[in-house]
Amino acid sequence: MKHDKIIIGHGSGGRLTNNLIKDMFVKYFDNEILDMQGDSSVLTVEGNTLSFTTDSFVVNPVFFPGGNIGNLAIAGTVNDLAVSGAKPLYLSAGFIIEEGLPLDDLETIVKTMAGEAKAAGVKIVTGDTKVVERGKADKIFINTTGIGVLPPSRKHIGSGKNIVAGDKILINGAVGDHGMAVMAKRNELNISSDIKSDCAALNGLIAGVFEAAGEGVKFMRDATRGGLSAVLTEMFEGKNFGVEIEEDAVPVHEAVAGMCELLGFDPFHVANEGKVVIVVDEKSADAVLRAMHRHPLGKEAAIIGEVTAEHKGKGHIITAVGGRRIIDMPAGELLPRIC
Amino acid sequence: MKHDKIIIGHGSGGRLTNNLIKDMFVKYFDNEILDMQGDSSVLTVEGNTLSFTTDSFVVNPVFFPGGNIGNLAIAGTVNDLAVSGAKPLYLSAGFIIEEGLPLDDLETIVKTMAGEAKAAGVKIVTGDTKVVERGKADKIFINTTGIGVLPPSRKHIGSGKNIVAGDKILINGAVGDHGMAVMAKRNELNISSDIKSDCAALNGLIAGVFEAAGEGVKFMRDATRGGLSAVLTEMFEGKNFGVEIEEDAVPVHEAVAGMCELLGFDPFHVANEGKVVIVVDEKSADAVLRAMHRHPLGKEAAIIGEVTAEHKGKGHIITAVGGRRIIDMPAGELLPRIC
Repeated sequence: MKHDKIIIGHGSGGRLTNNLIKDMFVKYFDNEILDMQGDSSVLTVEGNTLSFTTDSFVVNPVFFPGGNIGNLAIAGTVNDLAVSGAKPLYLSAGFIIEEGLPLDDLETIVKTMAGEAKAAGVKIVTGDTKVVERGKADKIFINTTGIGVLPPSRKHIGSGKNIVAGDKILINGAVGDHGMAVMAKRNELNISSDIKSDCAALNGLIAGVFEAAGEGVKFMRDATRGGLSAVLTEMFEGKNFGVEIEEDAVPVHEAVAGMCELLGFDPFHVANEGKVVIVVDEKSADAVLRAMHRHPLGKEAAIIGEVTAEHKGKGHIITAVGGRRIIDMPAGELLPRIC
Repeated sequence: MKHDKIIIGHGSGGRLTNNLIKDMFVKYFDNEILDMQGDSSVLTVEGNTLSFTTDSFVVNPVFFPGGNIGNLAIAGTVNDLAVSGAKPLYLSAGFIIEEGLPLDDLETIVKTMAGEAKAAGVKIVTGDTKVVERGKADKIFINTTGIGVLPPSRKHIGSGKNIVAGDKILINGAVGDHGMAVMAKRNELNISSDIKSDCAALNGLIAGVFEAAGEGVKFMRDATRGGLSAVLTEMFEGKNFGVEIEEDAVPVHEAVAGMCELLGFDPFHVANEGKVVIVVDEKSADAVLRAMHRHPLGKEAAIIGEVTAEHKGKGHIITAVGGRRIIDMPAGELLPRIC
């Protein structure tokens, strides 16, 4: 289906976003380094390898259980750097603020950003502030762009080009918390829940994974918009291998499973803000799992599947009763403005 | 005057923006590198000196005489890097798009960005796309964040710490074109004019200035929001020197002067997007002027004033009849959403 106008689905992180990126940004910005898929670009500057990534945050509501747009903006960009294998160092912060935003709200957000940056060990070093008239933005949008240093031995982590059949697929905990926490908070739904966003900077956990497995780490990606399904699809699509995920092995909190069922969502499609999908060689899998279990953000980590020689370019979920379901990106927009 | 809500003036680039930066961002993001004044931060990464800067663009209308939000977003960030003394290398591009934006408009903008980046010799290497519901943004907002390499000998250019009395102040051409071009294009005004935005990437012109004067270059800043007055005020405020500008020496196009008079604006307060204020030692001034005159973007370059030992921390405009007018930042918001 062709569109002549931007629709909400173009921002979903799913198929429509993917097509827009290919047909528009990649087409015109064409260069050998460009990466518009939401993770980091690898740059060589004066002989050093850097990771560089950008993300704009438009989450609605700005304050939600477990966080606000401020820690989301820091954690999101720190995570994009960390999953590329880089040590996150410096962030910029660009604010677009709607006239009328209470200064107290801005102060809360800015304090949260400062705290999250400190905890993650990164510095916010440059910024910009724009104000637009009432009704021309929605409270506040924040762009964060980050720079990290990437050991050259980890250059392949973002692309996953070393993935082979037999590799194991892990995740550091339960999926769907962020999406359902934000959804429950929105005024239009009369749902009360205890679900909290999983929003967190993962660079500490990821450093532990590299310590445990070194060169055994093949691929990492944080599962944000489009959820676990989008990450897996980007990983296997067009590749010389397949993916099999054991449905029962993927942690999902009970409240999230219940809310997803109620609303007709697939928890594998729902956004996270503190979950990383990691592919490691078979012999490193247990060590990586143990390393994650030792970290506060990896208590519920699990091995959820493996890379297969069969079904090249395809992914399947193996259900509890042994059935097979195709893994694909969400087609349209499930949850607008989740991040 | 204290505010409890964000008002349009907080985004003006003038006094209110300055106070918001000090009272909020600098207070909480506090670190030795932080620069929130709209130019670049100087970073040391693995022994190399980098320049890092961010800018969000919310210009209204998106298309205006002389350009669109696309070339503005590229030129703006390239210029912030170049005026820090850096060679601009890589940009990120973050899009926040309002549902309903025609894809043809997006394509025009993206093509313009690609062309401007190519002309400036920079690469757009990473990006992000968010979509918000109709009425929750205004067509399109673009963040660009840039990285450049900075020769360590130029680390002082951004702060101007080597400025001394006797230094000369130059500009590469006429002021006020961008602000008046955007203003004339807005629907609310029934003004027709031939004024075109001066939006342009200045890194080529600036490279010529460094070739001509080397260590003689003391300070550079592009005069965007807040115009020439804001740049000069940031330069002299709290410093051990004064500034004198010859009013008649500052180029202003006739149509801009006329429109400013009609609307009650001071052209020195009006935004530019292709103008750089340069301070050089006295002996380099003529060589720098000649270098600028040789460049297409410096045909109307002029020596507009000098740094004085008197009137420390103050700036004055010397009028044609020998009067003196204080230079200050615009206090509120003259022209919302000019960039």
